[in-house]
Amino acid sequence: MSERRVRLALTVGDPGGIGPEITGSLLATRSLSGADVYVIGAHSSLSSWLPALACGAARVIPIAEASTLETPDSFPVYIDTGADAAYRRGRPTAEGGRASGLAIEAAAALAKRGLVEGIVTGPISKEALALAGYSKVSHTELLAGLLDAPDCQMMMVSPGLRIVILTRDIPLRDVPSAVTAERIEACVRVTGRSLRELFGVSNPRIAVAALNPHAGDGGVLGTEERETIIPSLDALRAAGYLLDGPLSADTMFYKWEKKGYDAFIALYHDQGMIPFKAGGFEKGVNMTIGLPVVRTSVCHGTAYDIVGKGTAETGSLESAFALAVECCRARRAWRAGGRG
Amino acid sequence: MSERRVRLALTVGDPGGIGPEITGSLLATRSLSGADVYVIGAHSSLSSWLPALACGAARVIPIAEASTLETPDSFPVYIDTGADAAYRRGRPTAEGGRASGLAIEAAAALAKRGLVEGIVTGPISKEALALAGYSKVSHTELLAGLLDAPDCQMMMVSPGLRIVILTRDIPLRDVPSAVTAERIEACVRVTGRSLRELFGVSNPRIAVAALNPHAGDGGVLGTEERETIIPSLDALRAAGYLLDGPLSADTMFYKWEKKGYDAFIALYHDQGMIPFKAGGFEKGVNMTIGLPVVRTSVCHGTAYDIVGKGTAETGSLESAFALAVECCRARRAWRAGGRG
Repeated sequence: MSERRVRLALTVGDPGGIGPEITGSLLATRSLSGADVYVIGAHSSLSSWLPALACGAARVIPIAEASTLETPDSFPVYIDTGADAAYRRGRPTAEGGRASGLAIEAAAALAKRGLVEGIVTGPISKEALALAGYSKVSHTELLAGLLDAPDCQMMMVSPGLRIVILTRDIPLRDVPSAVTAERIEACVRVTGRSLRELFGVSNPRIAVAALNPHAGDGGVLGTEERETIIPSLDALRAAGYLLDGPLSADTMFYKWEKKGYDAFIALYHDQGMIPFKAGGFEKGVNMTIGLPVVRTSVCHGTAYDIVGKGTAETGSLESAFALAVECCRARRAWRAGGRG
Repeated sequence: MSERRVRLALTVGDPGGIGPEITGSLLATRSLSGADVYVIGAHSSLSSWLPALACGAARVIPIAEASTLETPDSFPVYIDTGADAAYRRGRPTAEGGRASGLAIEAAAALAKRGLVEGIVTGPISKEALALAGYSKVSHTELLAGLLDAPDCQMMMVSPGLRIVILTRDIPLRDVPSAVTAERIEACVRVTGRSLRELFGVSNPRIAVAALNPHAGDGGVLGTEERETIIPSLDALRAAGYLLDGPLSADTMFYKWEKKGYDAFIALYHDQGMIPFKAGGFEKGVNMTIGLPVVRTSVCHGTAYDIVGKGTAETGSLESAFALAVECCRARRAWRAGGRG
């Protein structure tokens, strides 16, 4: 079983963004030896990068046929979402959004049929998805719905550093009331399980940030620690989790590399993203944990302003691809160990 | 004028904390050649460190006589706040709080009488000050009151990085409504003036953080940018300030060293303290700007747990002392240039 090559879906992302060129670079410069890949996107956006790939024999399958696709004999396979002419490079369009959305749906369908163990996603535009009529406009929301995993979480990963962000794109004003016991419990459980299953950590140690400065300083600087966070963490500790927290966030992230935590849970966007970016962002990966498949993503956007200039960096996509392969292998080992 | 040595008050901080030993180290290892110093604190807490200072001739003045003190012939001068026996090393006590508070008051009095141009403060305990009956328990609050400077601001300084924190020790829940146009305007004005006056920056460039993720994303992720922050910054730009913002905080602090800003304004504690600590904290200095005198401070606490063990680091106090001397000299030059 575990000798079989890892099978991944790779969605190109918005055809008007840098997704096509970084996908082209990835396919050209990597042997992909560890993985068999379904590349899903608007084929016309990729085709200008394809000659460099020496993949004239590549199989291109219209998306309408993807649902009946059986495992092919050779890889990579290209699944074409269409969007041949109407999208525009360098800006969000409804056509680009439609192509992005279809690719995500096709990747989820391959996962549900067991044809892939993981999904790597290129950069999409929330605006383009909205123009195309999507009400869910983020990968995490879309995949949570398609794969029926409401408790999935966002984990930012860079070398040695994993930060899960409890509440994400919401106004700061709404953060305190969104930090509920239920959400903390779900987040810790998903984080703990993912560290075991996807990262091979047998006894994960997790640090959880406080909401308020100095962790509320005994209630003087905010009551959420005392009323919600401390009781939640105590209950989770009693259930066997190795948790430290709530920790004052500035102290928690100071010299994080020396502290031996397997993951940090930040309670809101800036609290997690500031230290993540400070800690080395170029090769950072944005990952969704708690899905039935591995899912990794670049942690940058469509970068419309540099499309086609040849300056787009492939580091984040390479890291996302490598991490997906690694996590799929770790999960096979974990399942083979009878722990699945 | 500008050849005269800089005169500083140095408060030892809580006598039960590491203030006495780091003060002793500073006095022993530095020539203090740039400055004449009034050392203010519980003399008994310092005396075990004094033999190392070879300052048997040091003049020790009881605090009751400090108010009539004239500029002495030689420095350092020790002003003794008392607290001979009742304080305890390694924990907060009312006696220790009283000694800390008296020292701050004496330093402010020297400043008001024009005897010192700057104050360097050692670590105090908020708990000890509260035990001693103080209602204001932070240096910033105490000095703002004593020196009648309600608009003073906290600036964190480390090599190349200056972060002013708009709202400080308040619950996160209270931050959005505390980010008012008045507070933003006062903060930018004080920051701009201090950069000119204390750091010799003739045309300061200041970056201001957003409150919400992605700077509110046009109102989808919070309205404070649109309703308060953007109009405030526009008005300040019209008044001549070089400002960028509101900037998504994670992006603003990413690779800050390459951006050429003279200061960053963060809107709340964790937003400013996380990147400050990530950016090199050991030699960090906590500074109050907007006071009539220079004021710098160590940016660590009393560290009761390591008192007397000989492991306390003096780096932050050395940096605070050096920065105070530098800022006093910059201000003399600024005033000599007729800009005062």
